[in-house]
Amino acid sequence: MEKFEVKAYGAESPVAELKLININRREATAKDIEIAILFCGVCHSDLHTARNDWGGTVYPSAPGHEIVGRVTKVGSDVTKFKVGDLAAVGCMVDSCQTCPSCAQDLEQYCQNGFVGTYNGKDKHLGGRTFGGYSEKIVVDEHFVLRVPENLDPAATAPLLCAGITTWSPLRHWNVGEHSTVAVVGLGGLGHMAIKLAKALGAKVTLFSRSPGKEQDALELGADEVVISTDDAQMAGVTGKFDLIIDTVPYVHDVNHYIPSLSTNGTLVLVGYLGPLDPMLNSVPLIMGRKSVAGSLIGGIAETQEMLDFCGKHNIVSEIEVVNIQDINEAYERMLKSDVRYRFVIDMASLK
Amino acid sequence: MEKFEVKAYGAESPVAELKLININRREATAKDIEIAILFCGVCHSDLHTARNDWGGTVYPSAPGHEIVGRVTKVGSDVTKFKVGDLAAVGCMVDSCQTCPSCAQDLEQYCQNGFVGTYNGKDKHLGGRTFGGYSEKIVVDEHFVLRVPENLDPAATAPLLCAGITTWSPLRHWNVGEHSTVAVVGLGGLGHMAIKLAKALGAKVTLFSRSPGKEQDALELGADEVVISTDDAQMAGVTGKFDLIIDTVPYVHDVNHYIPSLSTNGTLVLVGYLGPLDPMLNSVPLIMGRKSVAGSLIGGIAETQEMLDFCGKHNIVSEIEVVNIQDINEAYERMLKSDVRYRFVIDMASLK
Repeated sequence: MEKFEVKAYGAESPVAELKLININRREATAKDIEIAILFCGVCHSDLHTARNDWGGTVYPSAPGHEIVGRVTKVGSDVTKFKVGDLAAVGCMVDSCQTCPSCAQDLEQYCQNGFVGTYNGKDKHLGGRTFGGYSEKIVVDEHFVLRVPENLDPAATAPLLCAGITTWSPLRHWNVGEHSTVAVVGLGGLGHMAIKLAKALGAKVTLFSRSPGKEQDALELGADEVVISTDDAQMAGVTGKFDLIIDTVPYVHDVNHYIPSLSTNGTLVLVGYLGPLDPMLNSVPLIMGRKSVAGSLIGGIAETQEMLDFCGKHNIVSEIEVVNIQDINEAYERMLKSDVRYRFVIDMASLK
Repeated sequence: MEKFEVKAYGAESPVAELKLININRREATAKDIEIAILFCGVCHSDLHTARNDWGGTVYPSAPGHEIVGRVTKVGSDVTKFKVGDLAAVGCMVDSCQTCPSCAQDLEQYCQNGFVGTYNGKDKHLGGRTFGGYSEKIVVDEHFVLRVPENLDPAATAPLLCAGITTWSPLRHWNVGEHSTVAVVGLGGLGHMAIKLAKALGAKVTLFSRSPGKEQDALELGADEVVISTDDAQMAGVTGKFDLIIDTVPYVHDVNHYIPSLSTNGTLVLVGYLGPLDPMLNSVPLIMGRKSVAGSLIGGIAETQEMLDFCGKHNIVSEIEVVNIQDINEAYERMLKSDVRYRFVIDMASLK
């Protein structure tokens, strides 16, 4: 298969800093779109993969799955895009497209495993896929999204992961004007959850462990902030929420939030991967037909729906733009939650 | 308030065997129905309450919340029943009837706490309510159910707890002809879950730890039995079930069943009250938008719906009829799962 070399930033080992590397991209096939990357958001998953925190990373590894760019080439069978279009790529670049999940536009739950935008098994070139910390990317048009031209492309990039990860549960659990939604954690995902839930018409509450985030949360659209370490405030929201979107990426006590769910309410985990420690207690679930669920990004059609919704409602992420040369420092700041609320790399800095 | 004395069987302490006692019933008020109890099913909760396993039992305690009898008196405002009707009482005899849950016919999730049929706070006579191990019971007509005359009244009694506890999640999660349902555990609840899911048109699988139950399960209506300790059989049902009804009443590893849920599937706990040990892992929930939920009995309208459905489909519980004098032995056998599948007390034995 024909290929070409592009510059990228990647890690050579779990303990190495990210640095300039060269990677291969395939020449666009009939179904492919080649995109010159303008901006790439920085997700916690990028760091976890670069450092092999979850195991399975193949090096060199170039992360990045919140990608916005301009189309520079289209294959002969491509119908959705033309050269010059603004386009986006999220967390997936392929899936089997035949299993029951794919058939329901739920590629994120592909029963044969979707191909991640980075560290996925590259069906074309072999080895692993490389992400958006690079000059260009070549992707099957099914996995490329249209970007509303009215949105700032840099601030749009995080919608491709942080945005869709919160949009999908909001839509799956039918959040609308009569919904009461709470968000646990105010980071990249949490701040998008507030904006999107509010735009869908819900009453939105932020659960925060510390009082410092109240002003930010209200400006983002939250109707109230509940300090989750304050027993009186927690008691005040007993039975209130139809849906809690829990964005916290580390182990924490989920039981603490269950009493604030309404009858039939659901707490959906979108950030933490691992055993629920302390143990989840079934009693409050049974006593109110409550659920604890998980949700992963969103399907391609749903991602397009989200982008179109954001275009209509003028919603983007709150970002801090950095150069690619600053990525290692950005990771350290991200680990300390020292970012409001998402780093985005200006890929012009890679030239 | 006027009252009268009836014979009952109850425990005087956590370590005492149940024996003949006398209890008071109120004279029927305008809204009340007085019922001469014909049969009363024996639920695990009866034993747990009699022995104070959950704490909070006030003695003497007379259990029983799967009650079928004949109406012997109706209050002046009663419209649904007349003397001589077959009638039933389940796990609840009162609720606030004004909170959002009660307003949605979900009295089982009454936000002010429903009044249990036994060991509940008796709003009329003070002290605690006494259950169906007795000659008569007096209940607000809202909490009394009509019993289809074509059903065997003895075998109908367990529908009031074991039946509705499995019916409610089947209905809430929209089980129908295109559903695939699994049931964990073949006891009082599990055997009803199989019958009801099958009658709703679902494909039904029993998860069992031991091979001995296959014939029974198939006769009850299951399409297949999967031995949950057999890794190959478990792998064969990966991603299969829309709904798993987990009836196991003791601590067990819920994680074991999650891979067999389909994308968007739910495992609903109806038997086990306590911390999920070992810890529930969020990863398989997130990777397939799966949920772990709880569900408690069902509302009064839903209980009537279930009884009417059972009348139409000629569904009753599989039972072993015992005399009240044998209740202590029945408890010991129930603890050893030595019953197919529900004991029912013939209350004529109390006379």
